[in-house]
Amino acid sequence: MKIIDLRSDTVTKPSQEMRKAMYEAEVGDDVFKEDPTVNKLEEYAAELLGKEAALFVTSGVMGNQICLNVLTNPGDEVICERDAHIFNYESGSPAKLSGIQLLPVEGKNGVFTSEQVEPLIRPASAYYMPRTKVIEVENTHNRASGAIWPLEKIIELKNLAKKYNLFYHLDGARIWNASVATEISVKEYASHFDTISCCLSKGLGAPVGSIIAGTKDFIQEAYRIRKSWGGGMRQAGILAAAGLYALKNNVERLKEDHEKARYLAQRISENKNLEVNLDAVQTNIILFKPLKLSVEEGIKRCKDEGLILSVGKIDLIRAVTHLDVSFDDIKKAADIIDSVFK
Amino acid sequence: MKIIDLRSDTVTKPSQEMRKAMYEAEVGDDVFKEDPTVNKLEEYAAELLGKEAALFVTSGVMGNQICLNVLTNPGDEVICERDAHIFNYESGSPAKLSGIQLLPVEGKNGVFTSEQVEPLIRPASAYYMPRTKVIEVENTHNRASGAIWPLEKIIELKNLAKKYNLFYHLDGARIWNASVATEISVKEYASHFDTISCCLSKGLGAPVGSIIAGTKDFIQEAYRIRKSWGGGMRQAGILAAAGLYALKNNVERLKEDHEKARYLAQRISENKNLEVNLDAVQTNIILFKPLKLSVEEGIKRCKDEGLILSVGKIDLIRAVTHLDVSFDDIKKAADIIDSVFK
Amino acid sequence: MKIIDLRSDTVTKPSQEMRKAMYEAEVGDDVFKEDPTVNKLEEYAAELLGKEAALFVTSGVMGNQICLNVLTNPGDEVICERDAHIFNYESGSPAKLSGIQLLPVEGKNGVFTSEQVEPLIRPASAYYMPRTKVIEVENTHNRASGAIWPLEKIIELKNLAKKYNLFYHLDGARIWNASVATEISVKEYASHFDTISCCLSKGLGAPVGSIIAGTKDFIQEAYRIRKSWGGGMRQAGILAAAGLYALKNNVERLKEDHEKARYLAQRISENKNLEVNLDAVQTNIILFKPLKLSVEEGIKRCKDEGLILSVGKIDLIRAVTHLDVSFDDIKKAADIIDSVFK
Amino acid sequence: MKIIDLRSDTVTKPSQEMRKAMYEAEVGDDVFKEDPTVNKLEEYAAELLGKEAALFVTSGVMGNQICLNVLTNPGDEVICERDAHIFNYESGSPAKLSGIQLLPVEGKNGVFTSEQVEPLIRPASAYYMPRTKVIEVENTHNRASGAIWPLEKIIELKNLAKKYNLFYHLDGARIWNASVATEISVKEYASHFDTISCCLSKGLGAPVGSIIAGTKDFIQEAYRIRKSWGGGMRQAGILAAAGLYALKNNVERLKEDHEKARYLAQRISENKNLEVNLDAVQTNIILFKPLKLSVEEGIKRCKDEGLILSVGKIDLIRAVTHLDVSFDDIKKAADIIDSVFK
Repeated sequence: MKIIDLRSDTVTKPSQEMRKAMYEAEVGDDVFKEDPTVNKLEEYAAELLGKEAALFVTSGVMGNQICLNVLTNPGDEVICERDAHIFNYESGSPAKLSGIQLLPVEGKNGVFTSEQVEPLIRPASAYYMPRTKVIEVENTHNRASGAIWPLEKIIELKNLAKKYNLFYHLDGARIWNASVATEISVKEYASHFDTISCCLSKGLGAPVGSIIAGTKDFIQEAYRIRKSWGGGMRQAGILAAAGLYALKNNVERLKEDHEKARYLAQRISENKNLEVNLDAVQTNIILFKPLKLSVEEGIKRCKDEGLILSVGKIDLIRAVTHLDVSFDDIKKAADIIDSVFK
Repeated sequence: MKIIDLRSDTVTKPSQEMRKAMYEAEVGDDVFKEDPTVNKLEEYAAELLGKEAALFVTSGVMGNQICLNVLTNPGDEVICERDAHIFNYESGSPAKLSGIQLLPVEGKNGVFTSEQVEPLIRPASAYYMPRTKVIEVENTHNRASGAIWPLEKIIELKNLAKKYNLFYHLDGARIWNASVATEISVKEYASHFDTISCCLSKGLGAPVGSIIAGTKDFIQEAYRIRKSWGGGMRQAGILAAAGLYALKNNVERLKEDHEKARYLAQRISENKNLEVNLDAVQTNIILFKPLKLSVEEGIKRCKDEGLILSVGKIDLIRAVTHLDVSFDDIKKAADIIDSVFK
Repeated sequence: MKIIDLRSDTVTKPSQEMRKAMYEAEVGDDVFKEDPTVNKLEEYAAELLGKEAALFVTSGVMGNQICLNVLTNPGDEVICERDAHIFNYESGSPAKLSGIQLLPVEGKNGVFTSEQVEPLIRPASAYYMPRTKVIEVENTHNRASGAIWPLEKIIELKNLAKKYNLFYHLDGARIWNASVATEISVKEYASHFDTISCCLSKGLGAPVGSIIAGTKDFIQEAYRIRKSWGGGMRQAGILAAAGLYALKNNVERLKEDHEKARYLAQRISENKNLEVNLDAVQTNIILFKPLKLSVEEGIKRCKDEGLILSVGKIDLIRAVTHLDVSFDDIKKAADIIDSVFK
Repeated sequence: MKIIDLRSDTVTKPSQEMRKAMYEAEVGDDVFKEDPTVNKLEEYAAELLGKEAALFVTSGVMGNQICLNVLTNPGDEVICERDAHIFNYESGSPAKLSGIQLLPVEGKNGVFTSEQVEPLIRPASAYYMPRTKVIEVENTHNRASGAIWPLEKIIELKNLAKKYNLFYHLDGARIWNASVATEISVKEYASHFDTISCCLSKGLGAPVGSIIAGTKDFIQEAYRIRKSWGGGMRQAGILAAAGLYALKNNVERLKEDHEKARYLAQRISENKNLEVNLDAVQTNIILFKPLKLSVEEGIKRCKDEGLILSVGKIDLIRAVTHLDVSFDDIKKAADIIDSVFK
């Protein structure tokens, strides 16, 4: 039985072309900044994101956490969405690695507003409170079914950040999906933020790695932090080659993932035993609520039929489309879901 | 002009009797555990709270933070109320001192429920999430206008904590007020928690100090942490004498503070330019919203008349009754508020 | 049997005059900076130390640790003496509270040189090393038998610190002893350092408290850190009154402690079963080595005779003179030691 | 001009065979523990090291730091050699990532003894001291010219660790070199330690990665920490394939690196303007002191001739042999050194 794995877009395997790029990669010791392929990737990514400099890191978690670490001091506070990746899926590392507190705001489809944030900014005179230092936005928003932040909301918060002299960080793990869906360039998105973290290993299909970008000074300090956390890799050009390939070849095709997701969400919405918020399915992630079966039972039965799904939130099942599942696979997946939840 | 200071119950000054107790206190080196007055206070407090052992610490912040530090490891998560003191008024220290994340829950008058909490407990298998370790309750709840936690809600959460093998901590900075108001003993309250922190320097009128209590093992480790944070004091018996005096003489009289608060709240509620939630005024704290003047302007004008108030939340003014203001002062305060907000 | 306690100069109890000063102290809420006695103490100490500002803190540990915390960032390195208080007696708090590494240097009588330090300063380009940030000196040096740092050595290291743009911190817990012994003013000593921490509760005889001093900006941040660690005390004027009394009345008399120490050291040196480095006994601390008995056994037998001593280092017994032991007590102590180690 | 790069054995590039192994590697999502090649590498390494379990991590720094993090709590102390990698080349991360203090001991050729360590272990009763928790050994010792720890010294310290209930960690970044040189198996070496970290990317020639090993419980917690620091990689099998290849093919050949090092050291020792401690050159690292030129000038002139060296310590030049330099290259290097320092 062929397995259709929709747990995450992180499960994709490198294609033959990508493997070839890795096989042929020119490498050097990146801890000495002498790996030509890593250097090329970092320059290419910086250019693409319109930032002075970029740094290759091992994961999305490391990307976000290094950015937060460089932007803050222990005792600072970071405002983020209640369902943000950094609040829920990064092991409490903001507190553990940087000594910072997160102040979560309840968004709508992952989006919160400057009206919500402004009263939460701690007064500078309140020496007994944490110091508000960063506003963080996640676009697309993983736990909000891959929803996209409207550009005007991004700009609105940027203006607030400026007004209060706060940093503004974008968790752009899936910024490529947002860009492809809206036709707003990643450069445009990135231009509103001080720092950005984005993944090469999710929809783009590279096996390992993320990129962070910002000013030269920021990246220089980030480079130091990366080393201190054990993220310095030697001949990392092997991985960078895959990242470079992914950036050059796999961005546009994310459209197909979105079409597949839309199709699957549509099919799910037609099942009266399932509930799905179609409005939120803007990219490649679908969350749906089983009304008759428990989440665990639903997932188990789908797995028995060859379809692997995961828990989204406590009462929601998650399906993610990606480059290793074809439109036919998705049709098959829809059929399995239909039969399981009939 | 006599100043009536209602900013906080921390502004009280030691009475002559309390000063005398300090003057005559027998002391020793508490870092060697040889201060007889500190030892007496700790034994008395442990007995009063029904715990194996207690420790005298310099402040409420130190009390809560040591408890959290001993109960957790870096990367753990503590569930607390959105307006909790530890989330808002302790400098981000849970993250900074202990590397732990706070997960704030929106309560009603500071009270949240096990229904809210249960879905927030991180699954043990989710190795990429923080580890839920402690549930924290604040009673009375400072930022919720001194509201009291109903005993059954406390017990309900205790059962949840037990079920998930979590620790249960009480920020009882003003537990004395809760006890006096409900006639539930502090021992009864404390019995439901693993650890408790309570202040001698707020309503009880001691100049400095708090008490934490728990098992002997817990206090032994707390003692180590206190030293490591610089909280070890030598002849601390001077302060402990005041604390002991306060515990023995100033608890019952908190009733008067509650009556004063109720009177003042009533008067405020009769002013059509002010809004106050009378239901929440259960002890000695009043929060009220000025409808015509800004919070800052209102506070400023009262100050010009000899009444000092403080900011409660962003749109609320705070008044706190305590042993250094008489019922007459409170009447005067009510008159000033009336005239300022007329 | 009268007990003669020479374990430490921290065991002293406040005199009647000091108690009276505490009894009569005018107080306010120091967390609001409104305690007049604390303010007076801080101003007086700043003046005495020739610094812009000073802050009252609960202990010597808190004093040193706050200074280090404000001067550094996590990952920085502090150079100190191998037997420094911060390396041995502060619970590993530099690492725990501030994330900083200590680089211990083997001194001679607690004194190390710029020749030793210069090669240890990490090159700025070595991004994989900790960042050297502070040089720390302890004067008098507790574990080096109370030895004094020669002024020229202090200045030599200051110049090195300046050359490499490092901060320079003085652990002056017993700076008063150094000053009285050398007749170099504490202001002169302090003038060479960016920050200084000094104790009111050792030779000066106050029950609780230390002072840190530096620039206004430094103290403002220190004030924030003190609060965040739970060191903010309300009516701290009670304790500050004792500190103020101590500063005004108990400094000059440290000379007597030094004479007592010198006498006792001399007597010990005449005992052929004991070894003492007389050159190092420059203030009020004596370390001596028992040649026939173990340290533990020696201490036990003295205690049986009414003399309490403590472990200095692993093979050394420690005796400290202070204001609660008279010259007669010291003669008695010398006799006891003679008879125990005969 | 062909460049001979002897800065470090980290500069090696993957061979064609190793690249082929990566190209063909079967992969999966290692964050879900589903990458078959990573799993194979971890099982193979655990077997090789004789431990219950192993974990693939991105670097030697991450390997050591995760081990220390799992073994300790903030405020603990780790005893290591003065020139240890963790004390000098890991960015102060023990303090920064784990809140632990290092207690450095001056070794001889990197080796210290139980006689030195025993008096440094903090008494359990000394609640004001850091808690001694781990003894750490580095074998071979990088900064001690690649010197090897004698097995009996390793065992002696193990017994001390057991006696005091301490953990015992091996920084075995180059344990393969020690094993090949002494013909003591890595399993034998590892058997004496609780935890071990060893590199695939130095002498073994893999582009990226290290292995840590210990009990199952230890590795389970390490896996959690790795994720929380951002060290979780998705299709890490690409890198693991290189590591597996290296373990199977590149261990025995380290002998050649040792012969090359010995030859080069011999040649250097014959130059009267250079000083080298031949006894310490036991594996693949040479440290030598230029007597007429400065370290910087010497390095610069060699570079002009096509030989890249690095700074060892402040007055020492370092040369490291590895699989990307042939014996002929080494002869050429020796000639260049001769001519530069003639």
